[in-house]
Amino acid sequence: MATKPRKIMFMNPLASSSGVDAIFADMARQHKLPGTEVHITSMPADVGGFSHIEFRSYEAMVTRGIIRGVRAAAREGFDALAIGCFYDTALHDAREVSGQMIITAPCVASCEIAASLSNRFGIIVGRRKWVNQMHGTVREHGHEHRLSGFYHVELGVDDFQKDHAETGRRLIAAGRKAVEEDYAEAIILGCTMEVGFYREVEEALGVPVIDPSIAALKRAEYAAVLKQQSGWIPSRKWSSEAPSEAEMARFGGFDDGEAFGNRIVVEA
Amino acid sequence: MATKPRKIMFMNPLASSSGVDAIFADMARQHKLPGTEVHITSMPADVGGFSHIEFRSYEAMVTRGIIRGVRAAAREGFDALAIGCFYDTALHDAREVSGQMIITAPCVASCEIAASLSNRFGIIVGRRKWVNQMHGTVREHGHEHRLSGFYHVELGVDDFQKDHAETGRRLIAAGRKAVEEDYAEAIILGCTMEVGFYREVEEALGVPVIDPSIAALKRAEYAAVLKQQSGWIPSRKWSSEAPSEAEMARFGGFDDGEAFGNRIVVEA
Amino acid sequence: MATKPRKIMFMNPLASSSGVDAIFADMARQHKLPGTEVHITSMPADVGGFSHIEFRSYEAMVTRGIIRGVRAAAREGFDALAIGCFYDTALHDAREVSGQMIITAPCVASCEIAASLSNRFGIIVGRRKWVNQMHGTVREHGHEHRLSGFYHVELGVDDFQKDHAETGRRLIAAGRKAVEEDYAEAIILGCTMEVGFYREVEEALGVPVIDPSIAALKRAEYAAVLKQQSGWIPSRKWSSEAPSEAEMARFGGFDDGEAFGNRIVVEA
Amino acid sequence: MATKPRKIMFMNPLASSSGVDAIFADMARQHKLPGTEVHITSMPADVGGFSHIEFRSYEAMVTRGIIRGVRAAAREGFDALAIGCFYDTALHDAREVSGQMIITAPCVASCEIAASLSNRFGIIVGRRKWVNQMHGTVREHGHEHRLSGFYHVELGVDDFQKDHAETGRRLIAAGRKAVEEDYAEAIILGCTMEVGFYREVEEALGVPVIDPSIAALKRAEYAAVLKQQSGWIPSRKWSSEAPSEAEMARFGGFDDGEAFGNRIVVEA
Amino acid sequence: MATKPRKIMFMNPLASSSGVDAIFADMARQHKLPGTEVHITSMPADVGGFSHIEFRSYEAMVTRGIIRGVRAAAREGFDALAIGCFYDTALHDAREVSGQMIITAPCVASCEIAASLSNRFGIIVGRRKWVNQMHGTVREHGHEHRLSGFYHVELGVDDFQKDHAETGRRLIAAGRKAVEEDYAEAIILGCTMEVGFYREVEEALGVPVIDPSIAALKRAEYAAVLKQQSGWIPSRKWSSEAPSEAEMARFGGFDDGEAFGNRIVVEA
Amino acid sequence: MATKPRKIMFMNPLASSSGVDAIFADMARQHKLPGTEVHITSMPADVGGFSHIEFRSYEAMVTRGIIRGVRAAAREGFDALAIGCFYDTALHDAREVSGQMIITAPCVASCEIAASLSNRFGIIVGRRKWVNQMHGTVREHGHEHRLSGFYHVELGVDDFQKDHAETGRRLIAAGRKAVEEDYAEAIILGCTMEVGFYREVEEALGVPVIDPSIAALKRAEYAAVLKQQSGWIPSRKWSSEAPSEAEMARFGGFDDGEAFGNRIVVEA
Repeated sequence: MATKPRKIMFMNPLASSSGVDAIFADMARQHKLPGTEVHITSMPADVGGFSHIEFRSYEAMVTRGIIRGVRAAAREGFDALAIGCFYDTALHDAREVSGQMIITAPCVASCEIAASLSNRFGIIVGRRKWVNQMHGTVREHGHEHRLSGFYHVELGVDDFQKDHAETGRRLIAAGRKAVEEDYAEAIILGCTMEVGFYREVEEALGVPVIDPSIAALKRAEYAAVLKQQSGWIPSRKWSSEAPSEAEMARFGGFDDGEAFGNRIVVEA
Repeated sequence: MATKPRKIMFMNPLASSSGVDAIFADMARQHKLPGTEVHITSMPADVGGFSHIEFRSYEAMVTRGIIRGVRAAAREGFDALAIGCFYDTALHDAREVSGQMIITAPCVASCEIAASLSNRFGIIVGRRKWVNQMHGTVREHGHEHRLSGFYHVELGVDDFQKDHAETGRRLIAAGRKAVEEDYAEAIILGCTMEVGFYREVEEALGVPVIDPSIAALKRAEYAAVLKQQSGWIPSRKWSSEAPSEAEMARFGGFDDGEAFGNRIVVEA
Repeated sequence: MATKPRKIMFMNPLASSSGVDAIFADMARQHKLPGTEVHITSMPADVGGFSHIEFRSYEAMVTRGIIRGVRAAAREGFDALAIGCFYDTALHDAREVSGQMIITAPCVASCEIAASLSNRFGIIVGRRKWVNQMHGTVREHGHEHRLSGFYHVELGVDDFQKDHAETGRRLIAAGRKAVEEDYAEAIILGCTMEVGFYREVEEALGVPVIDPSIAALKRAEYAAVLKQQSGWIPSRKWSSEAPSEAEMARFGGFDDGEAFGNRIVVEA
Repeated sequence: MATKPRKIMFMNPLASSSGVDAIFADMARQHKLPGTEVHITSMPADVGGFSHIEFRSYEAMVTRGIIRGVRAAAREGFDALAIGCFYDTALHDAREVSGQMIITAPCVASCEIAASLSNRFGIIVGRRKWVNQMHGTVREHGHEHRLSGFYHVELGVDDFQKDHAETGRRLIAAGRKAVEEDYAEAIILGCTMEVGFYREVEEALGVPVIDPSIAALKRAEYAAVLKQQSGWIPSRKWSSEAPSEAEMARFGGFDDGEAFGNRIVVEA
Repeated sequence: MATKPRKIMFMNPLASSSGVDAIFADMARQHKLPGTEVHITSMPADVGGFSHIEFRSYEAMVTRGIIRGVRAAAREGFDALAIGCFYDTALHDAREVSGQMIITAPCVASCEIAASLSNRFGIIVGRRKWVNQMHGTVREHGHEHRLSGFYHVELGVDDFQKDHAETGRRLIAAGRKAVEEDYAEAIILGCTMEVGFYREVEEALGVPVIDPSIAALKRAEYAAVLKQQSGWIPSRKWSSEAPSEAEMARFGGFDDGEAFGNRIVVEA
Repeated sequence: MATKPRKIMFMNPLASSSGVDAIFADMARQHKLPGTEVHITSMPADVGGFSHIEFRSYEAMVTRGIIRGVRAAAREGFDALAIGCFYDTALHDAREVSGQMIITAPCVASCEIAASLSNRFGIIVGRRKWVNQMHGTVREHGHEHRLSGFYHVELGVDDFQKDHAETGRRLIAAGRKAVEEDYAEAIILGCTMEVGFYREVEEALGVPVIDPSIAALKRAEYAAVLKQQSGWIPSRKWSSEAPSEAEMARFGGFDDGEAFGNRIVVEA
């Protein structure tokens, strides 16, 4: 069996100043397997001071940082990387330049788990603003026929961790609506910043509640295990082709500046 | 972290006389994580002497055995169970009576992996007979838009392991057609009895080739890990509701006779 | 024109002890054409004492009985056979071994009729539990875009015939919701045990109300007429291929014991 | 049981001068049930001299005639009416003014039969010109996922009955392509003027071959039987609402001139 | 740049007696570009006295008039033609015989605009009767995934212009429901006779409100501009093939009588 | 009528060093309406030296530049803006921050035109690499059911304008395959750098051939006309909500440096 530790990166596409990396590091510590080393990273300063990317235009500003970070992680020999935003921001873009590293993200990882535990699930988001894009993402991932709906709680990304009691109440109320009125059989928390609430909501509702940060981390770890044992790495054929290093060097920007604004290492 | 070993069952829905359990046990030994105990089981004699279930009517004969086996495994405290047929035979039926045990199967497990490594994949099956049903299964799982097609090699389930060189040649030829003519970026071997060929086909084609037995085993193990760490177990709400023990006892047949015809234990 | 009577079987996939066969026989007597001989059958004792198969796992226990019954009916020279459960249990499995006999079932038969009389219809089921599976069946049959929704009345299969007045009230209330709130133009009663209510509901709602048992019986008779006149019998090509008799004999179980637990013959 | 004869109209939307009504009358004589009276009709002279309606713009010219004919048939007390063109021309328009008469048409009737006998079928058309519209019709009817494809034989509607040997050869060649290359398990002849060939093609190919004229006639008869026995008539709710007689009289044209240009009565 | 004026026809498929052509002419005057000549036409007397075509059967009566009018307009050298009904009545039929003239219609034109301004829109119709057909049209045009729903205001086509204050109130109430309850981001007025209300509704709701008559007119003008500058005219290949003049002459009716019942010319 | 000139920007998301802006300026000069002022712009140096963005990861690097450019254009009072890449790069992101300016792009603009001129079209791309992403875009735009397929000519973006004769030959050969083998009725050139070839390909094939650069420019102009005349500007409700200026200022990067690397003004 594998003896080399698996290396996983959980890359928060927000500014390091957002101060949430420690929360993700705690989560990683509690949920990783022995033999898995996890690095929690966030964006460097020149990518901007984003404490959230609720807007598509915000995502468009940080995708550059994601590409740079993914390339850096691949060079460092990471086995898998999770992009820490439920929009699955730049997932397909990142896959192109990930080399032998597998890329995953919270939405796809959560849907896979929810689909294995139930036939129908609801997704609790912060604001209605997010729904159109996430609906498209869920459709693209192939889970639209399992959706009971999206449920918003009138909280922005930055609000979830402000008043835990209030956030918990709202998540439970939204989840109850999903389960009782729309016949959801499981719930996905549709924002990585809803981290820390799944057990409480689960207990209140009596159905599985998936935390997307855990899902993304564990899906990355699962991919790393598969890579170690079966050698399954990303295809580089047809649409999965990677650009050449020479051309990237010529066009520029792929390796400028710091790749990460912050890094917390959780040992194997 | 968890100290109790994870218990996984890989349940071959064929007669133990098929003699393939040892192949699966070898596969499990090579691919399981430390701390995972795997039991390879097959159907008891009274379920019939099926060496393959290529026909829907054959599946209809063994689903009873699958239900009985799943109930037995749940009672024994298994964390997750993989049904060892690429039709994902009785997957949803089994989930209903699995208690706190998660059920998975080769087709869904393979599609999830292939979708994480490529944007488009082909599935190599034994006979054209299988395609209609499997296409429906892939559609139900949500991966139809990623399919380049199905490719048959004119071999029955019982033939794959007869002449390894010939089987290898055919799988590679079919895979080449998928990749070169239909632009597949990854390949799924669409039968658990294609076990043992993925590395050879991968090397020949230069794209990821997913072995469905490994995929099912590892997806079960992944589910067990998630259960241990996050407590995620099957929903029992709405369509996921389980029948009552009292009614099952009254209707009968759920616990008659031996649950398994064979069992190989791979220690944690 | 045909002089030989058409032979139709209405096969109730429940235990004969369920005592409902007489209700179906009455229905057949009132609705069959002259020249049609109908046999109402139910499952033999060794298939279990199922008075309903509301659960997928219950279906998985009786599919074996359906296969055996279908084979027996084909050998007896039946022209067509209707499986008497709105899940259309084992429809595709049964078709594989039906020889020259056409197989139909209540859901597909009802949807065809409702689609010929309206552009949009609702389906009244007993319990919400059933909806996910039936939705999938309706989708597979190709009628999803005509669905106004499913409406449950909080009655199990065994309850429909207990208190006729109450059942009637609930079916009418559910149908009214479908028509008035969701703009259904016709109603399908989504359980064969809702037999005997369609005229009353129709009168109350003023839209067509399809009884699935009648629909299944008549669709089978229609198939038998087409077979007699045009020779249209099931394809045996590609996915419709049947297993060989020799292999079925070798694997066993296909012809064990009694094929039917009960049989009521309604003469031509 | 019903003693009144069922009255069915097979309405050819072409000019009576097309001279094909006798062919349909023969077909009806050979395929109707005892107790079914069939009238074969065609369009009156003022609707135009159409010997075919291969073009959408031709259909647009005759829909007026279809509406007038349907209204006349409903007034005469017909139980069901089949529109004799595989485009299912004006099917939904006609349903609106059919009163208690059920309307059907060849494409929908053929697809229902083919879907009951196989999992996948091909449609043989005269010219590629027709495919786009028919594909849309098949999709609307809900059978797109069963289509292996459309196959054209470079014959116009007016050509099918000119040289029977040549037509037969082309239909068989096209059918063979569908079955052998695209894995069709059944064939639908996609033009009512392909009448008279299905047995020959069936024998050559060894799969069910559906004649759409027979299918339409028999589907109408089946609807009439259901109407007689269960009282199932068209919904008039929501989108199925009929216009008022007063308004139709005011707008004019609904009852002008002769309703039919020809009528052959096949006694019950 | 082009110096020849672009010629656009806005063809109202109703009787000229409906008296609404002047409203459309005013609309055209206010919205056309310099260099665009617009003719507002309506149906000649022999097509019937239709003041609305809310029913499919009404459409079936006037399609003949649309075909005749389209042919006449093409002969007169019009560059583009808009069919003035939100059902997009006979759009595909008309395209077949339009020669080098491009045909458009209100529903497709409105959906294109709404999709460019928002991600999700609702359609306000007069009566629920219309919804099923319009839903099918929107689906065929490819915009179903953007629909928040249809909203009916219990007004017939003939009622919209009767009491402006009341119509305005109802449109606003329906639009509010779409926006506030179903999260529509834009509104389409789903009837050309809702002309004249879009600014008032837009002001009340604060989201874009598309007038379908303007949309159709402008889409036709846009097509005419593209034709002038890039030479883009309708395909005549495969399903877009036109019938031959000789055959149309032989079948008859394509050029009988007056093509238009009314014509208002808005100079370039 | 409007007297103020309409202001349109055609924003090339590549580096100005790509030197193709003059080609687009010529195209604009030949195709714009009188009264339309067009600015051709490209990316500033700090966005990188991209001469093409064939890779998703390249797009991810330039989306920042698109957002900045769109904001600058909105501030300058442009009425509409076309993003000059057939991937429709960052279309939805850009719409969010476009204020009262409408955003369009080549793929959606071309599909709308092709759908108005034919029922089925093929798209000619440079390399197979592009197909997966473009297929998704076409699906999202709602035109998937009209696609005959994608056809690649083994040329990169940078190659199209190198050897005109060779490029023309390849485009014609690919278009012929689409039309003759897959029954396309129109062709879309699937790269803005295929500019300058549409007339030649059209002449060779006899079906409409859409140039995506012209389509995007004209669609933007059409949107500007609609804005001027009917006041139709982007929705800012729900998913179309824009971020606040204050937050953008706080996060930073939205207005850094030059917005454009190059600008050619084509006077009204």
